[in-house]
Amino acid sequence: MTKTVIQYVLSRLHDIGVTDVFGVPGDYAFSINDAICNDPNMRWVGCCNELNAAYAADGYARIKGAAALCTTYGVGELSAINGIAGAYAEHLPVFHLVGSPNMATQAARAPMHHTLGNGEYDLFRRMTEPVVCAHAVMTPQNAVYETERLIAKALYHRRPVYMAFPADLANQPVLGEATPIAAPGSNPDNLAAALEAIVSTLEKARMACVIAGILVGRTGQREVLRRLIDTSGLPFSTMLMGKSALDEQHPSYVGIYNGALMNDEVRTFVEGRDCVMLVGAPLTDFNTGAFTARLSPEKTIAINHHHIQIGGKRFNDVEMADLLVALVDHLPKRGWARINAKSLGNVSGKDNDPIDAPALYSRWERFFKPGDILVVETGTVSMGLGFALLPQGATFHNQTLWGSIGWATPAAFGAAVAAPDKRVVLMTGDGAHQLTVQEIGQFGRLGLTPIIFVLNNNGYLIERLLCKEPSIVYNDIAPWHYADLAKAFGNDDWLTARVTTCDEFDRALEEAGRSKTGAYIEVVTDAYAASPLALKLHDAVATLYK
Amino acid sequence: MTKTVIQYVLSRLHDIGVTDVFGVPGDYAFSINDAICNDPNMRWVGCCNELNAAYAADGYARIKGAAALCTTYGVGELSAINGIAGAYAEHLPVFHLVGSPNMATQAARAPMHHTLGNGEYDLFRRMTEPVVCAHAVMTPQNAVYETERLIAKALYHRRPVYMAFPADLANQPVLGEATPIAAPGSNPDNLAAALEAIVSTLEKARMACVIAGILVGRTGQREVLRRLIDTSGLPFSTMLMGKSALDEQHPSYVGIYNGALMNDEVRTFVEGRDCVMLVGAPLTDFNTGAFTARLSPEKTIAINHHHIQIGGKRFNDVEMADLLVALVDHLPKRGWARINAKSLGNVSGKDNDPIDAPALYSRWERFFKPGDILVVETGTVSMGLGFALLPQGATFHNQTLWGSIGWATPAAFGAAVAAPDKRVVLMTGDGAHQLTVQEIGQFGRLGLTPIIFVLNNNGYLIERLLCKEPSIVYNDIAPWHYADLAKAFGNDDWLTARVTTCDEFDRALEEAGRSKTGAYIEVVTDAYAASPLALKLHDAVATLYK
Repeated sequence: MTKTVIQYVLSRLHDIGVTDVFGVPGDYAFSINDAICNDPNMRWVGCCNELNAAYAADGYARIKGAAALCTTYGVGELSAINGIAGAYAEHLPVFHLVGSPNMATQAARAPMHHTLGNGEYDLFRRMTEPVVCAHAVMTPQNAVYETERLIAKALYHRRPVYMAFPADLANQPVLGEATPIAAPGSNPDNLAAALEAIVSTLEKARMACVIAGILVGRTGQREVLRRLIDTSGLPFSTMLMGKSALDEQHPSYVGIYNGALMNDEVRTFVEGRDCVMLVGAPLTDFNTGAFTARLSPEKTIAINHHHIQIGGKRFNDVEMADLLVALVDHLPKRGWARINAKSLGNVSGKDNDPIDAPALYSRWERFFKPGDILVVETGTVSMGLGFALLPQGATFHNQTLWGSIGWATPAAFGAAVAAPDKRVVLMTGDGAHQLTVQEIGQFGRLGLTPIIFVLNNNGYLIERLLCKEPSIVYNDIAPWHYADLAKAFGNDDWLTARVTTCDEFDRALEEAGRSKTGAYIEVVTDAYAASPLALKLHDAVATLYK
Repeated sequence: MTKTVIQYVLSRLHDIGVTDVFGVPGDYAFSINDAICNDPNMRWVGCCNELNAAYAADGYARIKGAAALCTTYGVGELSAINGIAGAYAEHLPVFHLVGSPNMATQAARAPMHHTLGNGEYDLFRRMTEPVVCAHAVMTPQNAVYETERLIAKALYHRRPVYMAFPADLANQPVLGEATPIAAPGSNPDNLAAALEAIVSTLEKARMACVIAGILVGRTGQREVLRRLIDTSGLPFSTMLMGKSALDEQHPSYVGIYNGALMNDEVRTFVEGRDCVMLVGAPLTDFNTGAFTARLSPEKTIAINHHHIQIGGKRFNDVEMADLLVALVDHLPKRGWARINAKSLGNVSGKDNDPIDAPALYSRWERFFKPGDILVVETGTVSMGLGFALLPQGATFHNQTLWGSIGWATPAAFGAAVAAPDKRVVLMTGDGAHQLTVQEIGQFGRLGLTPIIFVLNNNGYLIERLLCKEPSIVYNDIAPWHYADLAKAFGNDDWLTARVTTCDEFDRALEEAGRSKTGAYIEVVTDAYAASPLALKLHDAVATLYK
């Protein structure tokens, strides 16, 4: 039987690995909601609100490579738009399926609920344009072709796309057929030229290293790049946004490079190379230690997503994936100098000691296990954990560029949905947690058992460090009893604790490590117990904000 | 001393009655955040997240006539955008102050946090354009003039405006001076012609009535319209969006008109008039009983915000405010026929009876006191309470057009901030409450004592009634322990209760009525205990969705 518009889209999303759709239902979206629930290959994953659903889709896409989000017209899609923008900035293909009013309603310019009352029905699609790489209104006539176009765009750019489904059209049979659109290949001449330039540059180099970036994982090139590291013998660093792009237990890993702000030994190493090869690693503010990184262009090779830059020369239409494969075959093995990546060191503090920053971050680092999915909120927490040395196979997830606080809690939910057999550990701060806290109720509902740490330092710590007057009233937040929330939100059998000393923290960590249920641990610290990078940023505002 | 850009804006907002700014702080917004905290006339009211802050500003503007919201660049402003759209649809002047990066950062197209990483710095302002009536990037040179222009626009259209403040410019002294811009006046000829047409139409009418709409309150015309009702003797109805536009205890009030869906006596009365005068009352879907209202254009006078429509004739550039004042002086008193507005009737159910819809809504109606501010969530709750007869001076607030669920909880907070001496009563459903629940922690923090009722009917009831399969999984939500949340969110001294029978409900109502603290009451009903209009809509989907 011919598929309907929405059935066709769902079947193609399933083909690319999407088996769950996050969202909040709504009357204009019932056609989509119904189709998802009636599709044996798809699961509806209801969230508390649309922004949380978008963040959950973001978390899911980090694990599965793509994700889908469904919201209703106007109120729903606009609530999600910041999450879509985050997926854009952070290179995640999220398919945003939006239910819209029937075509007759739109044509009549009827003053319906969820509209501005002005008869305009194309405003919200237009509002979303800057934060998606493609968009379409899906009809029976265009659905087949547009679906292929949007999938191809989303996967090529690793960015979100927007698909509007007028409610009455969504259930009509599609017309016509289409086949998947292949991703653009590299220009062979430019690819060969770039390859030759890189091989020859490295041949002349005495000391070189790789910086593995965010796009390595996003584009599915982890395995290829690992082979390149192995066959070439090149050492590699990462920056914060690319943390865990390659396994941090790999012997060639030298640690996190963060310009002049942190890890002086890594800075000396990286900036002392005569050739640095950036792979999918954009030089953003927090990647570069607030622009204190010193990578002179003439000794830098930048392997970008779709083009290569070598010194002053640019090679267009060269795909990172193609180039990495070619390099595996063409770079000879050499005994490049390297240094060893360092952990945060021994656990500090004990007994009734308060939990200061060294006590906190060293314990968290020790708590991590191989294969963990670590979802880490932007702020002092990510700035501390960014420098922890991760066990084998553990992956680190943060919204380093978009930096929308609140992201981590629902993103951890999305990651747990995507990988129910892995251990998901969420680490967030109290200020950020307050934005999206309600999503913790979804874990228990789906039988997921994350370990959640909420750092209660009584306010927005990173802002206390960046603003003029740390104690100014806007950095304060409502005084919640965090440890009581997990059960109030329905996770009745979870382990919950509130810890204020090293000893209490140790016991909670031990119990959480053994727990068969989810765990929610409130870690109370002094308001100014900040991770080292967060403290450094306090002194770096002049380079951060030009 | 010359004011800075942000100081000037804040002083002008204070002039128009704004004394509080809702928001979430952020590094690009520190200039604004600092200025608010340092302004003795302004108070910073931190919210848990930006959408909640926007809803709170919406609630505040309903009470004080205008409101201000402050968010940071990108992540903050986009999170709030659905709340701004709601303020647009619902005619509320909310001033959205957005902190953006320094001009040098923007000019350098620097890859900063809270950007998409593509060097574009004007995208988010563009995204907001469709949901504000005016916008500007504030500079020392334009601040004075633009502030006046934006205030004039916001107050004339009763819509939100957007003001971006590059962080470095916000603290520079303003250049130049400006005086407030007067609102456009009516075209005198058109005003006179419209007045004459209305007077003559009503002179010929045998039976007439007024329908007082949402814009009466929004534009500050309550008192003038009340005088018009008194001097003319005209009876008046309202529709749902305009509920409590005039006092429901006024002897001329006939009740809620909702087309053919509800209140048959009111329908017969209104549709039986030979002249119906709509005052600021748009004919939206839920205002018209899903388009079942039958108001033939030839017997309708529509006094709109800025123009008048009488039968087929349109009078442009006539201000509602001017026309109402003129009508007070020109409409003679007549003994127009009327009917009496009806209450929901006696309280039903007792003892261990479960709380069904009649038991629920009749008790709530009886609970209300004169002067109450009632904030009522969209869904079965608003569809039930919309037909309650309110005590003197009580006002009813709902987002009838935009209908973004989750709005009510933070909006109640905003209303309470605006009117700390009034009793604020929030009635919401569990599904909607889940979107924005965390904001209840803000009440206790500010010493506010609302009474909050959460209707726990185990899911999205209004959607169960509108979709094809009521029990389909997407209408289920996470099973929270609502009654435990108020204290977990820090309202330690509140009265909390969970009631499942009429007797328990009666006792909780009595205690809440006496409580000196805030109260949070979870009211448990059957999943299908729906208000009558909600049930009717179930049968009216054919007219609602064309």
